[in-house]
Amino acid sequence: MIASLSDNCTLAQKAAILRFIESHGLRVHVGEAGAGTIVSIIGNPEPGLGEMIAALPGVESVSLEAPRYPFVAREARSAPSTVRVSDVVIGGRGTAVIAGPCSVESESQLLTIARAVAKEGAVLLRGGAFKPRTSPYSFQGLGEQGLALLALAREETGLGVVSEVVAPEDIPLMNRYVDMLQVGSRNMQNFRLLSAVGEQPTPVLLKRGLMSTIEELLLAAEYIVAAGNPRVVLCERGIRSFETATRGTLDISAVPVLKERTHLPVLIDPSHAAGKRSLVPSLAAAGIAAGADGLIIEVHDRPDEALSDGPQSLTLDGFAETMELVGKVADALGRPLAVVPA
Amino acid sequence: MIASLSDNCTLAQKAAILRFIESHGLRVHVGEAGAGTIVSIIGNPEPGLGEMIAALPGVESVSLEAPRYPFVAREARSAPSTVRVSDVVIGGRGTAVIAGPCSVESESQLLTIARAVAKEGAVLLRGGAFKPRTSPYSFQGLGEQGLALLALAREETGLGVVSEVVAPEDIPLMNRYVDMLQVGSRNMQNFRLLSAVGEQPTPVLLKRGLMSTIEELLLAAEYIVAAGNPRVVLCERGIRSFETATRGTLDISAVPVLKERTHLPVLIDPSHAAGKRSLVPSLAAAGIAAGADGLIIEVHDRPDEALSDGPQSLTLDGFAETMELVGKVADALGRPLAVVPA
Amino acid sequence: MIASLSDNCTLAQKAAILRFIESHGLRVHVGEAGAGTIVSIIGNPEPGLGEMIAALPGVESVSLEAPRYPFVAREARSAPSTVRVSDVVIGGRGTAVIAGPCSVESESQLLTIARAVAKEGAVLLRGGAFKPRTSPYSFQGLGEQGLALLALAREETGLGVVSEVVAPEDIPLMNRYVDMLQVGSRNMQNFRLLSAVGEQPTPVLLKRGLMSTIEELLLAAEYIVAAGNPRVVLCERGIRSFETATRGTLDISAVPVLKERTHLPVLIDPSHAAGKRSLVPSLAAAGIAAGADGLIIEVHDRPDEALSDGPQSLTLDGFAETMELVGKVADALGRPLAVVPA
Amino acid sequence: MIASLSDNCTLAQKAAILRFIESHGLRVHVGEAGAGTIVSIIGNPEPGLGEMIAALPGVESVSLEAPRYPFVAREARSAPSTVRVSDVVIGGRGTAVIAGPCSVESESQLLTIARAVAKEGAVLLRGGAFKPRTSPYSFQGLGEQGLALLALAREETGLGVVSEVVAPEDIPLMNRYVDMLQVGSRNMQNFRLLSAVGEQPTPVLLKRGLMSTIEELLLAAEYIVAAGNPRVVLCERGIRSFETATRGTLDISAVPVLKERTHLPVLIDPSHAAGKRSLVPSLAAAGIAAGADGLIIEVHDRPDEALSDGPQSLTLDGFAETMELVGKVADALGRPLAVVPA
Repeated sequence: MIASLSDNCTLAQKAAILRFIESHGLRVHVGEAGAGTIVSIIGNPEPGLGEMIAALPGVESVSLEAPRYPFVAREARSAPSTVRVSDVVIGGRGTAVIAGPCSVESESQLLTIARAVAKEGAVLLRGGAFKPRTSPYSFQGLGEQGLALLALAREETGLGVVSEVVAPEDIPLMNRYVDMLQVGSRNMQNFRLLSAVGEQPTPVLLKRGLMSTIEELLLAAEYIVAAGNPRVVLCERGIRSFETATRGTLDISAVPVLKERTHLPVLIDPSHAAGKRSLVPSLAAAGIAAGADGLIIEVHDRPDEALSDGPQSLTLDGFAETMELVGKVADALGRPLAVVPA
Repeated sequence: MIASLSDNCTLAQKAAILRFIESHGLRVHVGEAGAGTIVSIIGNPEPGLGEMIAALPGVESVSLEAPRYPFVAREARSAPSTVRVSDVVIGGRGTAVIAGPCSVESESQLLTIARAVAKEGAVLLRGGAFKPRTSPYSFQGLGEQGLALLALAREETGLGVVSEVVAPEDIPLMNRYVDMLQVGSRNMQNFRLLSAVGEQPTPVLLKRGLMSTIEELLLAAEYIVAAGNPRVVLCERGIRSFETATRGTLDISAVPVLKERTHLPVLIDPSHAAGKRSLVPSLAAAGIAAGADGLIIEVHDRPDEALSDGPQSLTLDGFAETMELVGKVADALGRPLAVVPA
Repeated sequence: MIASLSDNCTLAQKAAILRFIESHGLRVHVGEAGAGTIVSIIGNPEPGLGEMIAALPGVESVSLEAPRYPFVAREARSAPSTVRVSDVVIGGRGTAVIAGPCSVESESQLLTIARAVAKEGAVLLRGGAFKPRTSPYSFQGLGEQGLALLALAREETGLGVVSEVVAPEDIPLMNRYVDMLQVGSRNMQNFRLLSAVGEQPTPVLLKRGLMSTIEELLLAAEYIVAAGNPRVVLCERGIRSFETATRGTLDISAVPVLKERTHLPVLIDPSHAAGKRSLVPSLAAAGIAAGADGLIIEVHDRPDEALSDGPQSLTLDGFAETMELVGKVADALGRPLAVVPA
Repeated sequence: MIASLSDNCTLAQKAAILRFIESHGLRVHVGEAGAGTIVSIIGNPEPGLGEMIAALPGVESVSLEAPRYPFVAREARSAPSTVRVSDVVIGGRGTAVIAGPCSVESESQLLTIARAVAKEGAVLLRGGAFKPRTSPYSFQGLGEQGLALLALAREETGLGVVSEVVAPEDIPLMNRYVDMLQVGSRNMQNFRLLSAVGEQPTPVLLKRGLMSTIEELLLAAEYIVAAGNPRVVLCERGIRSFETATRGTLDISAVPVLKERTHLPVLIDPSHAAGKRSLVPSLAAAGIAAGADGLIIEVHDRPDEALSDGPQSLTLDGFAETMELVGKVADALGRPLAVVPA
């Protein structure tokens, strides 16, 4: 349920409205949506409550059939939104590249890679510490030790760090180390996790599920924003299709479709889509040409020995070449690679 | 990593092996797999540990390249496994039908439906109390109140109850009320949840993800069994394809494929696959003809007023007709509808 | 464009209407659709022609926005239609099984298989003489020699024969030998071929394309019926999805969906869907349980030496077992296996 | 079957080899493949023939298990191949843009569009005269009248013309009017048509089927080249997936995958993939960034009145803007838009 406040609703009226709703066991979140202010009401309202809210002073209307995603819809803002992560702005004029290994494996591995990607122009460092793996017998990540290494790499390179969160109970721990929480593809519809990252302030990188429509991605983002955290960046990373030549099918059309439907920034992950190193540069360039605000790319100093996703990780040299290619396209489109302030 | 124990491994040797592995920060689970006994080792072993384990008395071999799912593979048992839920055996000679509403909505709704499905031969009652919903603004379930109503319906009808669990922290609460925990499609690769339901003894109904392969379903089941809970029932409920005439595409072939690859029981959910009431009887009959051990079907006394999944819910009359049709096929194949002991 | 004739349209008026339309360079076909008679007008009518036709005596209305498939829609007939092929009725009370090798390879191969499948209750013989193959270097079929062998097998066994047609120019040749023309999956939207088989009287087995929706299948059938041949049988044979455990994904839901939307008979091809012999019996049984009017199954006396589709071809013994299983389900549903009159 | 000729095979030996093979009722095609010369043998060789061919003077080896697509494989040539159409080279350094309406509708429509796209830098004109339509009641194209209009537009603008061929019997007619024959998605596995366009010299634009793998596309191209026509250009135009926000899912990864596997030029069709005008510029730019050799784009002067594909056709202004965007990316990558010699 969504309540729209009237333009001349006073602050006192607004507070009374929120108190009234919460007194009925519901959660509320107030936000900007278009020119007006809306209150999203989450929970199961009792029959007749909508009418009661509609009658309160300061309420313009109550919609039981809510617009599908009032907070993240394109119409909710006059301009695209930007998300600041550490020193970096995603969604602004520049193109932001996040790079790093699939998994944090060791100090030397992480620092080698972090220094190399920083040198080539990446502005944030990625690295998994808690790894969701298809098999229970695969490497599951270094856990807190991995997070500590990410923080160390940040100290060494100045790059903010992004890492995947797989459960609500890990958020406090992760927030001691990381600058951006990634919600991975397999958790895109883990609604408890979405609500949990929505109830805290660290920016969120939300990856589209392998099986999820663009609408479902936007509704997943709505869970986060409606819970209170507007700092959400979307990421297309390949969907499942019948084609087996690639690991996923990069749905490049998702970029312009998302740009029409939402104000949130959009990244492309060419690595998971391709599943194969040699395809990554082309897909990265295509992503930027399609209008994405940036990229997240897997890089490894010795990909053949990687504990996960080696075949799709760029070598350090491959990353340098990719950045050169991407830079050309980004420059041509007036969206040069973003730089971290020295 | 998997360690196979030798046939003449003593109990003292076995205990020493487990202590040794656990002393290196890893979790172990011992189980039957084929004729032998294996120890699944979960976590990230340090380099060289495999060799050290292989040298312990009582260990026959250590496999770093583990078979993909040693516990749930067909070869792990001499016969198909059965799972007892309340008074009912799933996977035995009889055909088990689980039925009930998508969501628990009220006492009268639930009791009306429960009595009707019990009368027509359902042996377990389904009903959602914690609902994973695509939109944050949709009905999210009654929570504990819904669980209490399920327990009440069990008292009234004698039917054991099945309900979906969406987060590890809810398991203790759910276990006070339900007989079987459902892990839903959207959580099939929520590995924390899989491990959590594996670390407790209540039987688990594991639904295949909308875009998960059969191999991934088996690996998800392996997470549960490797964590200690062998009481897992699989469920095919429709996958995503390009066809839009149905909500999902029921992958009927998954039944014989699963029967070849695993000893676990397999159910069919015709309701979610179809998304449309009129298709449910045909798909239910097809599922049993394909060799499934049972069905899970959504039923509602007033589907047009249902808070979720109304269009695909059978009416009470429709359920009676479906049971008659399914009963004919089940009888013809020598797998009559199971009955609850009076 | 579709013109509906009025109930009291005279034969002379009808003839005049048709002459008028044809004089404008269009093709017409008159058929039963529901209670009334409609004229389908194929071609590109000049502007204003619709109004001119609507004004002719005997015309009730002209619809520019034609119903999608007026001839094959369920509403077009008061009862499901049946298609007679040789001595066999498809779509009646009985269940019709078509069986035989993927490709006709030799006289001894074909006769061995034909006799065996006839003995086990198949009522029509399938066998490919013109094979559409993914690679130009694969076996392309025996051509007319293969057709002649099919006719020989018919003489020996009394079974009518079904074979695939791949081009309009082959139809006269094929009609000298076969009783039913199959339009294969890869040609489901070869509209010239559809029109060509529509302009001759031999019954047509129309297989759904790997990539085709149920709506597209019905529109392909409409091409055939609108061109003059109402003897069309539809066949679901597996669609493409992300799942790789099977060759195709048998869309079992297509059976009840088609039964709701069209009066045409529907078969299931479990062999191509499965791609693997061991899965065929379960899928065949599921197809009948779902309401299909019959099956088309690949059988080979020595499948390991087959020139095409060996892995999915049943052995002669496997076919016998499958027929026993299918017979049980068919009997239970009151649709026993059809028999050829002795 | 493939025979490789030895390096010192004489012309007389080669002629004798071909005569020998043809005398056994098989078709042959000689071509360059890698450093050597190969003879592709199409048809069904009798048992033992391979050994007989292998024993002929000048034959180095015979491969029954042919490489999947010896003629179109990347290894078959030392450099990417180029295809000349009218004055234009596709696959060279420049980026070739083909543009025009979905269907030829009238002289004024076609000439208006042709002049506009020529002015903005398109180098070939597309336009359908024989339209494969899902419904028999949709506009089916103007036929020869449409071809004549295309020839007229060529005269007016100097642009070579591309049009779809739907049946072998139309080829002689089409060759009187067009410069390039398009084989459409629905006919990608119409093997008779592939062979027929392979047995004549006009260049072929081969579009990937909606649900065809990249391997199947390459095998379809092999049909054409093995039949004698090496002038083949491939085109990715969107595949089917579960996503409904777009008409197809543009498989952008197909570009780098094809570039690794074949020497043939590759185009992108953003119009059919998108199904929606507003998405076309982004997809066009992405296609070039991914490495495609050009684009084929639908343009209409009054798209709202188009007889087919209006929603996805760019307006004339939209095409101008798209060309500006595409030009920037093409320039940045050193592959400027090709120009027609004045």
